[in-house]
Amino acid sequence: MVEAIGREEFYEISPADFFYRNRDIAGFSNPARALYSAVRELVENSLDAGEQAGRPPDIYVRLSCDGEKGEEGSSVYTLRVEDNGSGVPARYIPHAFGQVFYGSKYRLKQARGTFGLGGTMAILYGQITTNSPVHVTSSADGKRIHSYTLMIDIKNNRPIVLKHKVLSNHNGWKGTIIETKLEGEYSRAMPKILEYFRQTAIVAPYANLTFVDPKGRLYRFERATENMPKPPVEIKPHPYGIDVETMKRMIAVTQCRDMVSFLREHFHRIGRTVALRFLTEAAKIPPRRRPKRLTNDEIVKLVKAMRSFNGFRAPSAECLSPLGVELFKAGIVKELKPEFVSVKQRPPSVYLGYPFIVEVAIAYGGGVPKTGDIVLYRFANRIPLLYDEASDVAWKVVHQLVNWRYYKVDPAHDPVAVFIHICSTKIPYRSVGKEFIADVPEIEREILNGVREAARELSLFLSRKIAVERERQRLDAFEKYLPKIARFSSELAGRKPPNIKPLLKSVMRYVLEEERSVAS
Amino acid sequence: MVEAIGREEFYEISPADFFYRNRDIAGFSNPARALYSAVRELVENSLDAGEQAGRPPDIYVRLSCDGEKGEEGSSVYTLRVEDNGSGVPARYIPHAFGQVFYGSKYRLKQARGTFGLGGTMAILYGQITTNSPVHVTSSADGKRIHSYTLMIDIKNNRPIVLKHKVLSNHNGWKGTIIETKLEGEYSRAMPKILEYFRQTAIVAPYANLTFVDPKGRLYRFERATENMPKPPVEIKPHPYGIDVETMKRMIAVTQCRDMVSFLREHFHRIGRTVALRFLTEAAKIPPRRRPKRLTNDEIVKLVKAMRSFNGFRAPSAECLSPLGVELFKAGIVKELKPEFVSVKQRPPSVYLGYPFIVEVAIAYGGGVPKTGDIVLYRFANRIPLLYDEASDVAWKVVHQLVNWRYYKVDPAHDPVAVFIHICSTKIPYRSVGKEFIADVPEIEREILNGVREAARELSLFLSRKIAVERERQRLDAFEKYLPKIARFSSELAGRKPPNIKPLLKSVMRYVLEEERSVAS
Repeated sequence: MVEAIGREEFYEISPADFFYRNRDIAGFSNPARALYSAVRELVENSLDAGEQAGRPPDIYVRLSCDGEKGEEGSSVYTLRVEDNGSGVPARYIPHAFGQVFYGSKYRLKQARGTFGLGGTMAILYGQITTNSPVHVTSSADGKRIHSYTLMIDIKNNRPIVLKHKVLSNHNGWKGTIIETKLEGEYSRAMPKILEYFRQTAIVAPYANLTFVDPKGRLYRFERATENMPKPPVEIKPHPYGIDVETMKRMIAVTQCRDMVSFLREHFHRIGRTVALRFLTEAAKIPPRRRPKRLTNDEIVKLVKAMRSFNGFRAPSAECLSPLGVELFKAGIVKELKPEFVSVKQRPPSVYLGYPFIVEVAIAYGGGVPKTGDIVLYRFANRIPLLYDEASDVAWKVVHQLVNWRYYKVDPAHDPVAVFIHICSTKIPYRSVGKEFIADVPEIEREILNGVREAARELSLFLSRKIAVERERQRLDAFEKYLPKIARFSSELAGRKPPNIKPLLKSVMRYVLEEERSVAS
Repeated sequence: MVEAIGREEFYEISPADFFYRNRDIAGFSNPARALYSAVRELVENSLDAGEQAGRPPDIYVRLSCDGEKGEEGSSVYTLRVEDNGSGVPARYIPHAFGQVFYGSKYRLKQARGTFGLGGTMAILYGQITTNSPVHVTSSADGKRIHSYTLMIDIKNNRPIVLKHKVLSNHNGWKGTIIETKLEGEYSRAMPKILEYFRQTAIVAPYANLTFVDPKGRLYRFERATENMPKPPVEIKPHPYGIDVETMKRMIAVTQCRDMVSFLREHFHRIGRTVALRFLTEAAKIPPRRRPKRLTNDEIVKLVKAMRSFNGFRAPSAECLSPLGVELFKAGIVKELKPEFVSVKQRPPSVYLGYPFIVEVAIAYGGGVPKTGDIVLYRFANRIPLLYDEASDVAWKVVHQLVNWRYYKVDPAHDPVAVFIHICSTKIPYRSVGKEFIADVPEIEREILNGVREAARELSLFLSRKIAVERERQRLDAFEKYLPKIARFSSELAGRKPPNIKPLLKSVMRYVLEEERSVAS
């Protein structure tokens, strides 16, 4: 033992090496889960590339099995994903697909991917389970097509280019094709993969999604509209979200020569008046001071003042691209055909300087599955989240904070589904695999308010439903007994039976009106 | 928009920068959670250092608040953690505490930390929320004490040494002291922090833990034993867990000149006979081949053969350091004083070549809290896991796979607690914050079998308990009516009432015996 104690060695590992050793963390725990994660990561990159290009995405996914067996129950699959998106400029291809923590999405902009990890992780997993390279074909300019065969130098987190061909592009094609081999277990992954496509079709109704599975079955999700949502715009950081680290980085790159122009140039929604007021009243830094001359203490003071000054304008939500009430409703109605649906979009809000919008929908009856509890559908920046529901902030709100009885809902018996969509320039995921969202207080509050708003409408609907039901029972009694009473009375009186239809009809009309108002 | 499309820029970020941007992922979502995570990460490093040194750990944790206010509800705290562990050699201190993905635990050895991330993350979080450096004081050799003041260059993932002092060490002190400032919210973090210490005391009964909270309250968990568990030993990789990447790395460093010695030297439990059999029968590679001469295709073939050859010996569990039935039981009895407890240690098993052992305990009654469901306590390599229970493989087993009715347990009403401890050279955590474990099939199966074994004993106990309860009711009836019947009959017969005590006593003795056997 003395020997072991003395032998402690320290060394550094690369990020690729870290995820190679800890693939469970990135959503690649087992062959089934890995297959799901790989499909998901590549499809999300394709959807982002479509929105980047401003074209309605056409995404084709093919999973095929060449019969080669892997570990118990698993096989080797070839995964091919084609899109018509923005493409990747040739000089970036090797790093974008062969290096962890390398990407184009480290910016304040609503996007599905933000870690610079998922796509590379799918390729890395393929490499370590099948020892095969990945093939990436892409054209960003519509002029030339670049085709790369790559592997990853895991130890150094760098791409290894095995082949690079330049092809001519007669049709002006733009987009990306990725083909990688990986070990997987389709039979166990299938339900999640199909659910992923189904829910993606709900939140991206402007995309054509085609999936050919290993048995050759074709699943096609046609776009419902050509209208792309307003593309998300990159914004500058909001002063409330700035820490010393970020401030120092901004000062290092700025070309501004005084504090007023520095604030106006680099921050979100700061104008001249606000800048002057902030500098003189809160930060106590002369407006003409050169940013690069600020001392460390002054930077700390500046950042503290930014966080406590309440004269800044709230972040603009223009940079966000929520689904919108109509589109969200259409997606849910198309998919579940519920008896009732209420969709609420909350006003833009902000956490740590990041703007976000919460959209909530509640559906009742129709195709809403009866599971013995409320069914929760979660989306973040138009990604369906399918795993680890109970760790998500939305689960906490729906299952712990809302008192459903108050809204006349019996969670154990009523067919109720709750849909939560959060969009933000930065989603606070708590896992690298992007499965669930942290219970940031501001986000939790917005979800809770949204659910309550929608639940109030559901409650009204259920009250009316109960009233209508009672009315119907009353009517049934009328219909059943009134003719008999009338006949009996008239026989007793020795008269002809009266016409009771008008009476019945007047009652029925009331009920019909009730029904009409519920359906509207 | 056209502008935005053209402007797509790709770049690389460092691992420190990644976790700086995505602190939610490492368990630093909000000031309360961050405080909990920081305490936990530093205490775990101290426990590991104690075991590394082979000394029963004395760990002193002090959290103090200098009154400075942070964001709404949070304050700036100073966290100081002192231990008597192995210390960190001076030349490693800056990197070990100022660089992400740098550490001494990237090895096949049971340890709490394995990511090379947690401690540095606590320091990084402190730096970005308070802009203060960390103070690290350590002595590994008992001769000199090195004291460093550090900050992290986040962009480049490198430490910045602000001060370095060498002090003389008159008492031969060994250990490490870390002091860092960070933003936190103690009032909300308190329950989890105290629960963390309480559960740590259960699984590390050989440690003294002292915690002084910001209000000056002292929490002390005294060690129950001086006996340290057998220290974990580093092992060589098992052939079943080898992929091409690892094989290539081994070949790159090996000095062996033929395949037989290569296999014997670098792999776990491969002897000459097995090596020869494997090479000739399964891999079809000449035993005298030089490892460095293997072609890429041969390496792939070799790895495949390793995974399918079933002549290798199972991994030895000697490298593992489970709690053991006695210690586990003692911890639970001390803490919960249950009416019944059953502890089961499963035999060593293996997943992907990593050995692991599952220990399961079930407690009933006494201090087991009644929550309306079975209470689950989770431990991994002697770390209590307190968050995201529903995403853990143990939760799946306890709440979805086990049919408790079969064991006469009503989860909604019976006071039952289940304890799961997994130890392994590699715990398949699914989150960087080490909150929950992946549902690796082999581990899931072992947990299920362990729970079933313990549940069978609980079932026997409950049967007897029910029988005893019935017996007691029968006895109550005897005691109540027998004297009356005796008196009544004797009066009727005109005789003196008989002495019925012997009869009653004989029945009672049976019940007392039942009770004795339950308690034993």
